[in-house]
Amino acid sequence: MTNIDLLPVTLREVGLRDGLQSLSRTLPTDQKIEWLRAAHAAGQREIEVGSFVPARMLPQLADTAQIVDAAKALPGLVTSVLVPNLKGALAAIDSGADLMLLPISVSHAHSLANLRRTPDEAVAELARVRAARDAAGSRCRIEVGLSTAFGCTIQGRVDEDEVLRMLRAVLDAGAEEVGLADTVGYADPLQVTRLFEKGLAIAGERLSCGHFHDTRGLGLANVFAAWQVGVRRFDACLGGIGGCPHAPGASGNVATEDVAYLFASMGVPTGIDFDALIALRGRVAQWLDGEALHGTIARAGLPKTMLAA
Amino acid sequence: MTNIDLLPVTLREVGLRDGLQSLSRTLPTDQKIEWLRAAHAAGQREIEVGSFVPARMLPQLADTAQIVDAAKALPGLVTSVLVPNLKGALAAIDSGADLMLLPISVSHAHSLANLRRTPDEAVAELARVRAARDAAGSRCRIEVGLSTAFGCTIQGRVDEDEVLRMLRAVLDAGAEEVGLADTVGYADPLQVTRLFEKGLAIAGERLSCGHFHDTRGLGLANVFAAWQVGVRRFDACLGGIGGCPHAPGASGNVATEDVAYLFASMGVPTGIDFDALIALRGRVAQWLDGEALHGTIARAGLPKTMLAA
Repeated sequence: MTNIDLLPVTLREVGLRDGLQSLSRTLPTDQKIEWLRAAHAAGQREIEVGSFVPARMLPQLADTAQIVDAAKALPGLVTSVLVPNLKGALAAIDSGADLMLLPISVSHAHSLANLRRTPDEAVAELARVRAARDAAGSRCRIEVGLSTAFGCTIQGRVDEDEVLRMLRAVLDAGAEEVGLADTVGYADPLQVTRLFEKGLAIAGERLSCGHFHDTRGLGLANVFAAWQVGVRRFDACLGGIGGCPHAPGASGNVATEDVAYLFASMGVPTGIDFDALIALRGRVAQWLDGEALHGTIARAGLPKTMLAA
Repeated sequence: MTNIDLLPVTLREVGLRDGLQSLSRTLPTDQKIEWLRAAHAAGQREIEVGSFVPARMLPQLADTAQIVDAAKALPGLVTSVLVPNLKGALAAIDSGADLMLLPISVSHAHSLANLRRTPDEAVAELARVRAARDAAGSRCRIEVGLSTAFGCTIQGRVDEDEVLRMLRAVLDAGAEEVGLADTVGYADPLQVTRLFEKGLAIAGERLSCGHFHDTRGLGLANVFAAWQVGVRRFDACLGGIGGCPHAPGASGNVATEDVAYLFASMGVPTGIDFDALIALRGRVAQWLDGEALHGTIARAGLPKTMLAA
């Protein structure tokens, strides 16, 4: 056990974006704002509230600007939005969001299928986003999520050297933060250890986020592995909603409450009030009646050793 | 990443004992023997086949001597049985099993509730088991499973120093192998790292087994943590059957197929034929129709990167 500190860890809630966009229903704006406020009240301090994509593509997130407005009223909250391109970035800058996340896929096949551009074309778009942000005098931070960094359902294996090449490329093109994302649930903890160690050697603390899915049961082991080598910020989705379109019945994003429990069990602060988070999970389950929720700790409850006296 | 080797890992199948004893039904002897043979055919080389306890207490395992007979016919298989006391140990020696596992609880409260003796009284019984084994000229190895090593549903916290004191005590009393067991699913990966590191410093390779439950979603993270510090043998239960009596709906033992997937994903050999194991899981699910099976990988399937071409 070398170099392990118990510094605070940030969980970025992605349920309002990554979770909701994968459902066919649209959660009403009022309920999204209730979720947002309750998540903030439960101690969550970074929330991805939506995505600036055309409403015809993702009607579930068409009210993103309104949700950003509501988020900005909450003290101490980092309001994060996803943007697929320059047009989305301009909307994000205009909205006053604190951070915009641009996903860039390392897998060539996935990049073409998902964003209709090659990874290198996506890097060129990132450079345009950076120029526009700087020209606007905006403080909106630019983060790149390197998706399919651990494998791809279309092309299969993704070469580690290619991930590292893309990491350098997005830093050069103006990304201020970068995360590595296991978009399809292929990562294993040894691969996570290896790739984050190499990535941190290149990017230092600019490699600031791990995004893991629990599709094959390794989500928390992968979070632990990344934490061990120094990652202190993770994406997570309340109730693990969203599932995985490539594996019916299987979960998608790691569940926020499970990741919060993992860190709490190790004595690592996340600022999250566990009971408040579980209560919110119950309300979200009601709003999304009929959708499958995932995650484990909500079923079993906290161990006796962690209950308030 | 220091000192990580990819040496083979052994998964001891405990479904036929730990899994079946927790169900109210009794699986017929013929089906147990089918399970045993299919597990061996799938590459499993250590199987806990039953328990020598009075049949009135666990009628589900009353045919243990017959299962040991069947197991001994399988080449290269280590036949493991659980024994609660000297009487059980004598039956194990008589049966010709290769290894007997004596559970000793570190938690005083759990020990009294479960075995009606204090931990130190259990250590005295272990010494009698060792003397009897030696006197019989038997080659049946003696393993102690230190249960509730990471916490207890009755007394709550279990002190690490007490675990290490008990580890020394059971080695002194004649245990040839020892495992640390998270009997109730309270362990976290940092605690696992710490306790196994300290235990290995005391016991060396005699501390040879990790037994983890997935009750709160940390089962595989805990297996990974123990593996990282040098543990190369783990208990696991096909389909995670058995659940957890203290947490309805929650899983108990880590699922064999999930642990097999964890190691396969990292390139660590276990000798297990994954497809054969999943096929066996399907048959066990039919035999146990109506019982809840757990585990994740059986739902999602292997990633494209691990499928045969």
